[in-house]
Amino acid sequence: MKLLLISNSTNAGEEYLKYPIRQIGEHLSGVREIVFVPYAAVTFSYAEYERKVQRRFDEIGVKVRSIHREKNPLKTICEAEAICVGGGNTFALAKKMQEQGLMKAILRKIKNGTPYVGWSAGSNVCCPTICTTNDMPIVEPQSFKAIGAIKFQINPHYLDANPAGHAGETREQRILEYIEANPRRYVAGLREGCMLRYADGKLTLIGERPMRIFKKGMAPREVTASDDLSFLL
Amino acid sequence: MKLLLISNSTNAGEEYLKYPIRQIGEHLSGVREIVFVPYAAVTFSYAEYERKVQRRFDEIGVKVRSIHREKNPLKTICEAEAICVGGGNTFALAKKMQEQGLMKAILRKIKNGTPYVGWSAGSNVCCPTICTTNDMPIVEPQSFKAIGAIKFQINPHYLDANPAGHAGETREQRILEYIEANPRRYVAGLREGCMLRYADGKLTLIGERPMRIFKKGMAPREVTASDDLSFLL
Repeated sequence: MKLLLISNSTNAGEEYLKYPIRQIGEHLSGVREIVFVPYAAVTFSYAEYERKVQRRFDEIGVKVRSIHREKNPLKTICEAEAICVGGGNTFALAKKMQEQGLMKAILRKIKNGTPYVGWSAGSNVCCPTICTTNDMPIVEPQSFKAIGAIKFQINPHYLDANPAGHAGETREQRILEYIEANPRRYVAGLREGCMLRYADGKLTLIGERPMRIFKKGMAPREVTASDDLSFLL
Repeated sequence: MKLLLISNSTNAGEEYLKYPIRQIGEHLSGVREIVFVPYAAVTFSYAEYERKVQRRFDEIGVKVRSIHREKNPLKTICEAEAICVGGGNTFALAKKMQEQGLMKAILRKIKNGTPYVGWSAGSNVCCPTICTTNDMPIVEPQSFKAIGAIKFQINPHYLDANPAGHAGETREQRILEYIEANPRRYVAGLREGCMLRYADGKLTLIGERPMRIFKKGMAPREVTASDDLSFLL
């Protein structure tokens, strides 16, 4: 397996996909074309999404081929050199991927060594379920099951505080609810600007901020880029 | 129908259910006992939830009878003087309500005039679906369909800004995704400290902050407590 699971496409105030593009380039070393899954886009078109990603991927010399233009999406996945799933709304993404049977097909490819890159919703769907997304359930997918290439859940865009004066649950409170209801799963709170890379049997945190780890019965704790993350595998 | 749909139980820095208790008391005028649905609780017990609500409802002289202690929850709903659904995790709440067949039973009661009070997740489940919750999908309900006593969606805890430096979607962006995918529905962004009351065929906003209205094809707009809200009905 060769995975790059990115918290967020864009840091506040920066250009789209700017901060992770060097890592994406290294992860896709030798790849000429990626199959892109744009189905998390809701308020802009899949074609726009493809163009936006292509503009950034031009910098690493990789062609972006969006699956929404293909007559046979499953065949396109089966023949992909690499697979890339973009962010947006996780429920919209999961629904369309399930309708087209992409979850299982992508898992098979990942297990055979095809590189995978996801950011935000694209990182969420690589987990066992979509249960730790931050997104609004704007449409109903067939199920919450996702690709399941990894055994733990990622919470992308992990953040520590609520805006001042807001009484809604903090992100930590939401994840504590998740682990209460799902006591066997680890959750990795992946802060913005950070990513997880799995390659050569090893999982690594990339980024300057620590990642927050949650599991039922354990106090939440921080791990850094130098820590051994094999307990998540 | 007689509904009181509250954004949030507790304003930041205040005591539990303190700010809305006077309105709840007026809404439940003449009621001696409410049937309480505590199933949104995840990290604390239903019994604790019942006690917490009872402590506040003591101020208005109303007994709280939690449905989790009943052998026949459906019968308990059918015989209820009034129904109250508390906040917490909307997915956990919907799952358990669906398993016990409570959604339809509560709709029938509401249509027959039984007073309903909900806050946060308890307001969400009164809508056609749970699709505009802010909660994390920690468990998978049978479906996203909810009670459907009103025809529009409420987004409780509506808030305007992200914490500084955070690049995740704002609440407005999330709701714009919802109306893109659900073009026929209104969404009411109900800010903290506010509630919607339906009584005598009239819908009223109660609270000092405006409510933000979203519908596909219309610019989002603010309405205040003095505005006519009949367009939502």
